[in-house]
Amino acid sequence: MTRIPVVERIMKANDDVALANRKLLDAHGVHAINIIAAPGAGKTSLILAVAAALAGRRRVGVIEGDLASDVDAQKVRAAGLPVHQINTGGGCHLDARQVSAALAQLPLDEIDVLLIENVGNLVCPVSFVLGEHTRLAISSVPEGDDKPHKYPTVFANVDALALNKVDLLTFMPYDVVEFERLVRTLNPEITFFQVSATSGAGIQDLANWLVELTA
Amino acid sequence: MTRIPVVERIMKANDDVALANRKLLDAHGVHAINIIAAPGAGKTSLILAVAAALAGRRRVGVIEGDLASDVDAQKVRAAGLPVHQINTGGGCHLDARQVSAALAQLPLDEIDVLLIENVGNLVCPVSFVLGEHTRLAISSVPEGDDKPHKYPTVFANVDALALNKVDLLTFMPYDVVEFERLVRTLNPEITFFQVSATSGAGIQDLANWLVELTA
Repeated sequence: MTRIPVVERIMKANDDVALANRKLLDAHGVHAINIIAAPGAGKTSLILAVAAALAGRRRVGVIEGDLASDVDAQKVRAAGLPVHQINTGGGCHLDARQVSAALAQLPLDEIDVLLIENVGNLVCPVSFVLGEHTRLAISSVPEGDDKPHKYPTVFANVDALALNKVDLLTFMPYDVVEFERLVRTLNPEITFFQVSATSGAGIQDLANWLVELTA
Repeated sequence: MTRIPVVERIMKANDDVALANRKLLDAHGVHAINIIAAPGAGKTSLILAVAAALAGRRRVGVIEGDLASDVDAQKVRAAGLPVHQINTGGGCHLDARQVSAALAQLPLDEIDVLLIENVGNLVCPVSFVLGEHTRLAISSVPEGDDKPHKYPTVFANVDALALNKVDLLTFMPYDVVEFERLVRTLNPEITFFQVSATSGAGIQDLANWLVELTA
């Protein structure tokens, strides 16, 4: 119980920096999406596919969050997008202070949509706002259709959900209807996409949603 | 910086309970495996496959860790194994106190190998010992072969690693040789398995390893 006051101070400090991030983003006309998913759900691949689908309509920037390495940022940079890599060390989620430092490194006047790839983790990122306008969760077919039972907080606390790797539906048992039903018991108003960064399925729908968000 | 003394107290308290867990397990001749993996890596399926492969050689018990629900425990119970479900609420990992309570509910004298399925998370479980004798990480082919770059702490801090869902290698690009090379740069002595809970590939190897551990 000694822990609670300290945790509250940390959360309050994070909220304050997140609010400053939000004001900075708004001042530059940038709409930020906090992307939350398990490791290997296909966050980076989906970012690249959506950014390509937005070409000529919206200018995309990216923040990559990982414990270590810049392999994701390298992929994004190779696609010609402005990107900043955050390494959390051992940290299990991004926090607003890390994003604040990243924002200072990005050309915000050249970005309409900022895609923030959080650390691969279905639990911890949910509790830390970064200053984002919208939260997008990604789940992937190989993870199984029972995930809403086991990780309810993430599904309950996002605006939209992309079920990725739907090209693999033919290779494994997965009940998409039951998955969506479970998700909607937790979050009736959620926007739900079925996508594949590999086949391109649903990518235009996701891109069109981002265009509408930033109309 | 105010956070550090509190975190140290929490870790010390956890270590003390973990030590008591370990003594209890040893007194009953139970070897405990802490299984750490991302959501959807196939932990429960692999537990069921390995338990079936151990039938007649070792008696298996299971602790299931999830934020919510008992869907995993139901599957394990249906297979006839003694099981206890821990729900962490919002917690991103199991701790020693939760495992202590679970041990009090299990028939320890009827268990040789206790498989503890941690919360699906590649980061937080690494920092909390539970009293286990051995740590097994599971990674799965659809997660991609770059995970050691991005989540090095888990690969560096386990005794063994099972690459699961190798039946999917024909459907997606994945460099197993490069994956194992990356893992061994972090952990040269790691025991490495290639398995599929779906096809049965490698399951006997994993079962034989558990038999040797408990010889």
